[in-house]
Amino acid sequence: MTKYPSELAQLIASLKKLPGVGSKTAERFAFQLLNWSEEQLHGLSTLFAQIKAKIIPCEICRCLMDNHRCPFCSDAMRDKTQLCVIASPRDAYSIEETGTYRGLYHVLGGLLSPLDGKTPENLNLIQLKKRIATLQIQEIIIALDSTLEGDTTSLFLKEQIQTWGLPVSRLAFGLPIGSSLDFVDGSTLARALTGRQNF
Amino acid sequence: MTKYPSELAQLIASLKKLPGVGSKTAERFAFQLLNWSEEQLHGLSTLFAQIKAKIIPCEICRCLMDNHRCPFCSDAMRDKTQLCVIASPRDAYSIEETGTYRGLYHVLGGLLSPLDGKTPENLNLIQLKKRIATLQIQEIIIALDSTLEGDTTSLFLKEQIQTWGLPVSRLAFGLPIGSSLDFVDGSTLARALTGRQNF
Repeated sequence: MTKYPSELAQLIASLKKLPGVGSKTAERFAFQLLNWSEEQLHGLSTLFAQIKAKIIPCEICRCLMDNHRCPFCSDAMRDKTQLCVIASPRDAYSIEETGTYRGLYHVLGGLLSPLDGKTPENLNLIQLKKRIATLQIQEIIIALDSTLEGDTTSLFLKEQIQTWGLPVSRLAFGLPIGSSLDFVDGSTLARALTGRQNF
Repeated sequence: MTKYPSELAQLIASLKKLPGVGSKTAERFAFQLLNWSEEQLHGLSTLFAQIKAKIIPCEICRCLMDNHRCPFCSDAMRDKTQLCVIASPRDAYSIEETGTYRGLYHVLGGLLSPLDGKTPENLNLIQLKKRIATLQIQEIIIALDSTLEGDTTSLFLKEQIQTWGLPVSRLAFGLPIGSSLDFVDGSTLARALTGRQNF
């Protein structure tokens, strides 16, 4: 059986490392890339080579900096009494898109998962304690996944933060917007019921 | 609303050009790439920069060459009396994987589609005529898609090849393996019936 040229095989193997990309998709990507212009490929090549050096996390909140400037920490207009704890820098953009939050962020850098070797030491907690000591924070909002790891991390954080004497809240659980009761799973419905909101 | 750092936005825009990749997937890819090691990113960067120079089409059949050597044209063991006409170099690998063909290939470089500006002049036909004149080909197998464009191109090719006095065949149409009659569409069933094979 004739094999792909070695560089193409290497490219396919690299592309397969992207999330949710299997052999077939990686092959499709690779053959598509062969049709790109020299300029497009060089542009992407340069981006790949530079991305680590250009996009560095903020030393304070670990969000991604733009031109060596954190869009959140360095923004004087933001509410410095609210701190939203998130797992990864990407979550900040999802929350920003909602347009309902104007406070600061703090990136944990993951969720607790002892089986994967993620213990409290791996989370960005020392910095969190420091920030709480220096900033005039009045509320901490935990914005973590509603998964087993997210729940564990949230509980752990809640206990920590309460020892520091600060009020903690967590994103609400309930029906996703546009959902029909018929299709909502039991656990979601139970959480929506116990957490029912004044109307 | 806070935007992605400019290099990250550029990376996302480039990744969106891959087939079947929308904004959400491109974002997922980009954030995953940020977690890759410097080495992995440089490796991929080098591959992207070199791929055009390293993977070049064979001058004769337009299949992809490996180390400046066509795996098909330069293989003395291949049957030089059969020529399989395919749309893109990728199709050769799909056919090779079946292990049922040992002849030569000829890449057309696309299918006829006048609306997209793909006319017979854009297809690799002059080279096909030359090869037929020089090689001792006894059968031409058309292995093109069973789509409108594939059908049009196949009919066009058939007429051309018949004027050169060569027998032409095309991939069989019928039930895909493992399919149930209940789920097979009407056109496929009709083609399977009219093209029924001796059993």
